[in-house]
This record gives sequence, C-alpha cells and structure tokens, in this order.
Amino acid sequence: MSKKKIGFIGTGVMGKGIISHLLADGHLVYVFNRTKEKTLPLIDKGAVWGGSPSSMAKECSVIFTMVGFPTDVEEVYLGPRGLLENGQSGSVFVDLTTSTPTLAKEIAEKAALKNITVLDAPVSGGDIGAKNGTLSIMIGGDEKAFQTILPIFQLFGQNIVYHGPAGLGQHVKMSNQIVIASTMIGVCESLVYAKEAGLDLDRVLKSISNGAAGSWSLSNLAPRMIKEDYDPGFYVRHFIKDLKIALTEAERMDMTLPGLALAHSLYEDIALQGHDKNGTQALITHW
Amino acid sequence: MSKKKIGFIGTGVMGKGIISHLLADGHLVYVFNRTKEKTLPLIDKGAVWGGSPSSMAKECSVIFTMVGFPTDVEEVYLGPRGLLENGQSGSVFVDLTTSTPTLAKEIAEKAALKNITVLDAPVSGGDIGAKNGTLSIMIGGDEKAFQTILPIFQLFGQNIVYHGPAGLGQHVKMSNQIVIASTMIGVCESLVYAKEAGLDLDRVLKSISNGAAGSWSLSNLAPRMIKEDYDPGFYVRHFIKDLKIALTEAERMDMTLPGLALAHSLYEDIALQGHDKNGTQALITHW
Repeated sequence: MSKKKIGFIGTGVMGKGIISHLLADGHLVYVFNRTKEKTLPLIDKGAVWGGSPSSMAKECSVIFTMVGFPTDVEEVYLGPRGLLENGQSGSVFVDLTTSTPTLAKEIAEKAALKNITVLDAPVSGGDIGAKNGTLSIMIGGDEKAFQTILPIFQLFGQNIVYHGPAGLGQHVKMSNQIVIASTMIGVCESLVYAKEAGLDLDRVLKSISNGAAGSWSLSNLAPRMIKEDYDPGFYVRHFIKDLKIALTEAERMDMTLPGLALAHSLYEDIALQGHDKNGTQALITHW
Repeated sequence: MSKKKIGFIGTGVMGKGIISHLLADGHLVYVFNRTKEKTLPLIDKGAVWGGSPSSMAKECSVIFTMVGFPTDVEEVYLGPRGLLENGQSGSVFVDLTTSTPTLAKEIAEKAALKNITVLDAPVSGGDIGAKNGTLSIMIGGDEKAFQTILPIFQLFGQNIVYHGPAGLGQHVKMSNQIVIASTMIGVCESLVYAKEAGLDLDRVLKSISNGAAGSWSLSNLAPRMIKEDYDPGFYVRHFIKDLKIALTEAERMDMTLPGLALAHSLYEDIALQGHDKNGTQALITHW
C-alpha cells in the first residue's frame, strides 16, 4: 500500500512494539505520549513527535490510540482537545485500548456526526505479540473503514477478525478476559491443592498440562507460580480494569456471571495485598 | 516382556479400549463386569470370562480395575468376595478408577498386610485416549511395583508419570479435575456473554481460541456448546463425583477452593435439570 502519515497515541510497551512495525514498513509515524521521554527511542528510529492529540488530528487522517483506562480513551477522543473535536472529515481513528464496549459505541456515534470513523480494535497477545507482529485483533465498527485499515493491521496482527458494528471488538475482548478469569482460578486452586497434598508440582504439570485440563494459563503461568515469579506479563491492575468492565457490561445486560465475579473479587483482594503491579499469575498468593 | 495372565475388572467404554491393547500385545486377559453382556465383544476378541473378582484374584497375579464410583472400588478391593481377601501374596493390583485418595491409601495399606501391592493409577484422555492408547496415567503407590507394571502401562498410555506413595495418583487426578472445573465456568460465561452482546460465536472462537484464553475445553467443548450438542464425551454425573471427591479432600486438608465449590454447585444444578447423563459441556445450559 502507499506510505501514509499515521498518528499513534500511547507509546507504552504495546504501542512501542506496534509502532516499530509501522516504521519498518516505511510509514511516517507521528507519536504522542503523556510522558514524552517514552517516545524518544521511537523518534530515534524515525518517528516524529506529534505535539498533542489535537495537532495530530489536524495532521493525520489515520490515528491509532492505545492508552490506559477508559477515562483516558474518553479524554483523547471526546475531550475539548481531543481527536473528534479536531479531526478532519473522512479520517479513520482506531482505538486499540481494551476499553468499554458502551464507550466505543458512543465514540463511534459522535464521530459519525463529523464524518469521522472510529474502530474499536482491542488486541491480545501481550508485549511479545506486539513485538513479533503476531497480535490477535478484534475489530468492531464500520466495515469499509476496517477494509481500508486492514493492510496496516496486517503489519502487527496475525489473527485479525472483524466482528460487526462499533463496540463488538470490545465485547470480544471481554469474552476473552472472561475465559481467562475463571481459568486462572482453576490453575491456582489446582496448584494449591496439589501442594497441600504433598505432590511434586513440576511432575503434576507434566501429568496434566497436555490433556483436557490444558490451557495457555496452565502451560505459561503455572510454572511461574511454582517459582514464585510474579514479574508482570500482564498487570494485575489492568486485568482488574478489564474484569470490572466485563462485570459492568454483564450487569447492564442482566447477566449473572458468578465465575467472573469471583475472579474479580480475588484479584481485588491480591491488589490490596500489594500485587497490583505484579503479573496476573500472582493470583496464587490469595491462598 | 513375557506374556502374562492379566485380570481386568470393569469393561465400560474406557476398559474396553484398554483391554484391546492388552489383547493385541498377546496377553491372556481375564475379564469381569457386573453386566456380563458388556464383556462379550472382548471375549470374541480372545478375552476369557473371569467369573468373579474372587476367582480372578486366585487366577491372576496382576489385575486392573476400572469401575464407577468409590463405593464400587471399596467393594471390589475390600469386600468379603473382593481382591484383597482372595488375592495371592506377591500380586500387584492397579486401580484405574478415578476414586478418593484417602481410600486408595487405605486399600494400599490393607493390601500390604497381605503382601499385595495396590497402585492407584487414574487416567485422563477419555474413550478416544483409551482406544488410541494415548492416555495420561498418574500413578501412586510402591515404586518397584510401578516399574514392573510400566511395560503394561505403556501399551495404553503415553504420558505415564509416577508421583509417589499410594493416594498421590488420585490427588493428581483431582488437581486435573480442579483445573477443568473452573476453566469450564470461564468457557461457558464467555459464550453466554458473547451471545448476549450480539456476537457471532464462531467468529469469537476464531478470535480467542489460540491466545491467552485458549484451553482444551475452549477448543473442544465450546464448539459443541454452540451447536447445543450435549452428547457425552465425559458424563456430568462422573464429573460431579470427581468434584465431590476433590471438595471432600480439600476440606479434609483445610483448604477453601471457591472456584471448585462454585463449579460443583453449578454441575449439581444442571444434573437436577436432567443433564446428568449428558457431557460436561451441558454446563452452558445453566445460564
């Protein structure tokens, strides 16, 4: 595809990985981050400092955002110095943040009034997926806009699925987090039980990891739990954010999801014990 | 190894698969089942009707058992016409049933008084694993006896792990079931949420099955849930038995496992709704 000016707001670990792929493909990438220092390694690689979301909105007709919390998404899109207020007609903005489906829908609707398209496109695959360009991308929003962005998605994603109207990308991400929530409980309780029963935990994993009990969490996080290695692959605080969004949406739709509610309360509990900046495998410390 | 007389008690779907491998290797297999008819296809293949557990105990120095519930295990081993009462000194009996760790320990201890060794060796991998000889076998009990039986285990198992003294094989199986219990909740809640959110469920699975949410249950059982196909791979009633054993053992060891307790109550709930002879994927009907 022809090389483009692309804006990117939010240069955390995930953003950094993704931007590297955009640069490697020859795009001119304008970057912005609240802490400017974090953009310096990208500027060294050829990215351009974007100054502010509003100035980027005037400069770029395609902008990606990957910020922290739904309140950040709201500010970047709907705030007075935000993307919608300052964006050009015909632009396509893509929010890669895991945020609320309801907010995604609201933003897309308000954007449409200004002839701007906003896609919700949360990802999974973590910093390694971002670095290797192998993320799963779950997209909601206008399908034509999705088709125009697809070649860019392909630079950093491997499993790219369009799910329907605005908000549905976020709903899929919630479905993803809901599976993980209870799976993590199962993994922890299994290890706690096994340890108490006097078993050798590595041998237990050898017995159970590749059968009907098998999961990504069991294969990747249980070994870290055994070593008491709580270094973050995915932060407890971010997972709590996601579980809270899922719970709120479920409540709005009149659903009772007791596994999700249990996981949320267990994670809140370990966050209070000081694990909020540890990885999700720190759940084992609850027992 | 030299060909042996091997006894096998319990010729259900799992037993049948395993016995075929013993016969194929040239062993002389004595079989017994409460419902004799179920042994006929095996007798057609060369197995010998064993008459009763007590007569088999006199005939064979190696006997496998794979019966239904812990009460059945108790009767077969400890009953007046059972294996210990009638077994020869030096025999090795192997219980493949998923049963209680505490009972396994009790049986092994009582057997030792008669110079008989009993291994607890529950399996996972289902009827397909039994048929293909690819079961996981989790073994507890005397290690020397394990070594003598190993060549037979290798006829129907692929992932054969010795875990330590009597009862530990059962404990590993409980660890396996504990992971599955909460993972199943996560899979169900995810689909329930996704459906309510208006998503196409097959596309959701395409997005989430191969990442951090991935599991055997998600890949193998979620597609059946979507089709409302509740044919049993593994019976609800057997899973409830296992969860109940795990809960009882956890209680005995003073552990609180809220995910396991939740799964047990949800499964009891669907059993009451008539799903006890359906497969574990019927859990989705709870919502």
